[in-house]
Parts: sequence; structure tokens; C-alpha cells
Amino acid sequence: MPPCLYDVLGLGNAIVDVISRADDDFLAAQGLNKGAMMLIDEARAEELYKAMGPAAIVSGGSAANTIIGAASLGCSAAFIGKVKADELGAVFAHDIRAAKVKFSTAFSPDGAASARCLVIVTPDGQRTMNTFLGACQSLTEADVDEDIVKHSGIVYLEGYLWDPPAAKAAFVKASKIARAAGRKVALSLSDSFCVDRYRDEFIGLIRSGAVNILFANESELHSLYQTADFDTAVAQLRGENILSAITRSEQGSIVVTRDEVLATPAFPVDEVVDTTGAGDLFAAGFLAGLSKGKDLGTCARLGSLAAAEIIQHIGARPQTDLAQLAGQNGLKL
Amino acid sequence: MPPCLYDVLGLGNAIVDVISRADDDFLAAQGLNKGAMMLIDEARAEELYKAMGPAAIVSGGSAANTIIGAASLGCSAAFIGKVKADELGAVFAHDIRAAKVKFSTAFSPDGAASARCLVIVTPDGQRTMNTFLGACQSLTEADVDEDIVKHSGIVYLEGYLWDPPAAKAAFVKASKIARAAGRKVALSLSDSFCVDRYRDEFIGLIRSGAVNILFANESELHSLYQTADFDTAVAQLRGENILSAITRSEQGSIVVTRDEVLATPAFPVDEVVDTTGAGDLFAAGFLAGLSKGKDLGTCARLGSLAAAEIIQHIGARPQTDLAQLAGQNGLKL
Repeated sequence: MPPCLYDVLGLGNAIVDVISRADDDFLAAQGLNKGAMMLIDEARAEELYKAMGPAAIVSGGSAANTIIGAASLGCSAAFIGKVKADELGAVFAHDIRAAKVKFSTAFSPDGAASARCLVIVTPDGQRTMNTFLGACQSLTEADVDEDIVKHSGIVYLEGYLWDPPAAKAAFVKASKIARAAGRKVALSLSDSFCVDRYRDEFIGLIRSGAVNILFANESELHSLYQTADFDTAVAQLRGENILSAITRSEQGSIVVTRDEVLATPAFPVDEVVDTTGAGDLFAAGFLAGLSKGKDLGTCARLGSLAAAEIIQHIGARPQTDLAQLAGQNGLKL
Repeated sequence: MPPCLYDVLGLGNAIVDVISRADDDFLAAQGLNKGAMMLIDEARAEELYKAMGPAAIVSGGSAANTIIGAASLGCSAAFIGKVKADELGAVFAHDIRAAKVKFSTAFSPDGAASARCLVIVTPDGQRTMNTFLGACQSLTEADVDEDIVKHSGIVYLEGYLWDPPAAKAAFVKASKIARAAGRKVALSLSDSFCVDRYRDEFIGLIRSGAVNILFANESELHSLYQTADFDTAVAQLRGENILSAITRSEQGSIVVTRDEVLATPAFPVDEVVDTTGAGDLFAAGFLAGLSKGKDLGTCARLGSLAAAEIIQHIGARPQTDLAQLAGQNGLKL
């Protein structure tokens, strides 16, 4: 096996979040489905932005958030994703590199603008996302640097990559290289509507052995197995030959393998300000634990801790040194 | 007197803040003077941004923050300032209009990029600012819409406008129109180094009657009168024929007129996260109170309340409905 230069490599849509607060009436007036991620085109992005209140602009992207979180927990990390050579693209690249993550994907010189996600945060802390994929549509197999993939212990892929057509090929290529190099491949199901769009393909990835580790929340799991019953879904999951971590908001998480179901409570928080990135950061903590050889219970606790940090402020990138926070909570990595 | 369409009009540098956390060692390594505002050129802005950690991008600009705060307290408000027709310019315009502030200054079609302020927030909540003025340099007298100035109850001008050469002329024009229309003119001294740069001119504005209301913090006041003694500075201020509000961080504020010195305590806060905008928001509360005919003590309490909101989160724009917050604290406007 080639030496491991990166503990974790993420492959995902490179997105900058534009975050604004609004009430439920705004969601209704704009026809937005609370808590979900909706794909929008550029014209709709402009229209919605105009209707939104003052906004904070913070780098995001599901897998990118996870990788940043893992880096903050002390992992060596890399990311592959596509931005354009424009102002938001420069912001994305700055922020991920400033977090000490290797990011060397070529910028698109022309074509669609860098992706943005218009995030509406309601007073209950719930986030509703509207993504204009833009330059992410230009991610292709050619952007998957074989050398980086081979030298990464875990390759983490987001289900959202199924949305831009050429990105799926990049996903498949990365997964193949990783498996051939004896690496682990992790998949996040991203969003229940995303699962609706690509259910058969995601199940195919799990059953073909293309994926070893699965991250999902309850509604994504329900959507995957098309059942409203949690226990039924978990029983199905136990039948797959993978390691799964299922997040359950304030009920914490369960880790599911063929042999066991391990429940871990959520980490207590003072106030939920913005849930954007909660799942991403759970994955960050879990993957950081795995890459450092921790037991599954510790991995889940690290996930809960990182998720708790992210939901207590606006934006899906940590504002605290997570390694230090973990140490303060008896979870030294 | 023409009817009052706007309670408050702000004239200032239109800036987007790029905010990052760092420790004191970073300030030292970068040669930055903690707590101050330093002007930088585009090359230095790029170099410093590269060295900075992940950043949040939030509209700022001293007078713009004040005007947004006044609007959040229920004032009708307008702003004059210059951005370029680029991505950050669009962000600035979106955010100020989304806060229901009239903003109709023409965008520069070319020339320098929209202004940005690279803000470093240290663990003590102190902010150190590095401003690339960019398109603000293109603000001229022609941008001062006489009609808007005439119809504004208070015209609020920031001392920072002395930095871009042509903006000073815009400042003077706005002040003349306002006085001719029987309006009040307020000046913020902005920063002690700014006072160092333009001391004689600021004193000239105060003594010529071009300015009726003065906002400053302690160090700006010390700089204005070139004394290290607070009481000496206050005594000098009492000799001027103006209304002054001096902010003193956790010691609250004093309102100074020829006849009285009125102290008001700071509003208690749980944790100081980022002091960016504290002075701007004090001015917002104070001006909102004045424009609604409140007594000076109430004006100062409104200032303290708005400042307390802003220092408890990242960024210098309110994240709460200030009118509602004021109402909850017995300060209904």
C-alpha cells in the first residue's frame, strides 16, 4: 500500500454559503421546503438573493465542511472540487487552504460562476438551502488526481456529487482508485431528496462494495429504504456489509454494523443557532476518530462534539480549534 | 424646512468586512497595531488575506453600520457611499437595501475594486482593521444627492471620509446642504489615528458650526485635544458649542454639552465576541433616540443597548431586530 500522506480526502461540490435569517412566512412566500436542499438556476439565485435579508458569506459545501472539520481535529486533509476563477472562487480557495487543507483542483477559467448556496436560517435554527451549482458542473474525472487519492487513508464522497452529471464520473473514478490502493471509501447520503433522485445508484454503491462507510441522517435512511419506520430501516442497514453512522439530531447517533448497533447521545448545547453543517461536522469527527484508530464509540462522540460546535453559530465551518475542544472534553486524538 | 423623508442619512466609505480570528502573535508577525484601523493598498490586502485564516464576509463600513442600526431601530434611513459594479459591490448594495435603507449612489463602472476591510479578531474580542479603500476613492461631490440630504433629519458623516481625497468634498457639500436646510449634522471621529491625520480640520468643523453632534471614543477624544487626561479632554469639549457622546467601552458612555456631563453605564453582556462596530452601533442607538425626540439619557441607553448586541457576535451589522430588543428592555421608540 502506498504511504498515507492524507488521513482524509474529500470530493464534493465547492460552494460558498450566503446565509440569512428569515421566518417561516418567508419560506412559505418563496415556496421553500424547510430543512431541505433545493437546486436552483442562476436567475432564481439572483431573484431569491434579492428577496433575502442581509447575509453573511462563509465558505461551505458539504464534503468541504467535513474535511475542514477533520483538519481542525488534527487530520492531514485534502479536497477536490471545482470553482471558477472569480471572487467567490477565490474566497472558497482561500478559506480551505487557510484551514491547512491541500486544495489543488484547477479553477475553471470561464463558464458558470462559482457555486453558491443561499441558506435561510429560521428562528428554530433550522436551515433551508438553495444551491446554484455553477462551476461545480465542470468537475470531471480529469480533476481527480490519482496520486492524491492513492495516498489518502479515507476518501470521503458526498451524495450531492450525483447532481452535476460529470461529477458522478469523478466520484466513481476516485472510488475505484481508492479501493485498488486498499483505501476506505465513505459516502454521505447528503439529503433525503438527493436520495430520492439517486436511490438505486446509492444502493448499488453500497452493495457493490464501492463504499465501506456510510453517513446518513434519519430521513435520508428512511428515504434510502423507502420506509417510515426507523427500526425497519436499521434492520435493512444491518444486512449491508458496511459501517454506518446515522445521525438523529438531538437524539444523538447510532453506529450500525452487521454485528452491533451502538447509540451515542448528542453533545449538550446552550442554544441551537444554525444547524447548517451539523451532519457534515458529525462526519468530520467520526472520520477523524477512525483515521486515528479510535473505537467506534469514541468516533461517534467526536462526531457529536464537532456537530455541537457548528450548530452554536452561523455557518458550517468551525470557529473553534476542534482538537483543543476535543482535548478539553476528554477526547484527545 | 422641507419635509423629513429620512430620519437619518449616512455618508461614508462603503466597505465589505472580511473577518478572521487570530491571536496576538499573528498581529505581531504582520506588524499590526491592535485595535486600530490601518489603510492598506491592494497588493498588501492580497498578501494579508493570504496569511489570514478562514474568513466570514459581512458588509460593514462605519457610517453604513450606524445607518443599518438606526434602520433596525425603526428609523427611515438612507446612505451615500461608493462601490464598484463587482461581486463585493453587489454584496454591499444587497445588504444595505435588504435592511430597508435607501441606497442609490451610482456604482463605479471601472477603476479600483470595491473596498474591503480585513478585520482580525483576537481572543479578547478586540478587532484590528486593515482597509483597502478601492472604489471609495471615487466618491465625489457629484454623488451627494441634494434632494436626499435636504429631506434627512440628521446627516451623519464619518471622519474616515477624510481619507479618500475627493470624499472630503462630498462631506463638505452634504454638511452645507444640511445646514442650509436647517438639519443637524453629526460627525464620528472614527479612529484615533484618523484624528491624528486630520486633527485641525476636525476641530475646524466643530468650531465653524459645520457639525452639531460629535461621536468619539476616549482615545479619539484624547487625540483630538492631544491630552492623556480624560477630564482635561472633557473640559475642552464642554467649551465647544456642540452635543457630544463619548463611548468608554465597559465603562459606558458620557454625553457632554456646555451645561452637563451625563454618564450612562454599559449594557451588561455575557461574552464579548467581536467589538467590531461597537462605536458605530452606539451612534445608531443615540441617533435613533434623537430623531424620535428622546431625552439624552434615553439616547445614550439606546446606544449602549445597540452596542451590546453587536459585540456579542461576529460582524458589525445587527443580527437581531433592535427595535424589538429595545422594547424588551423598556426602551420603546
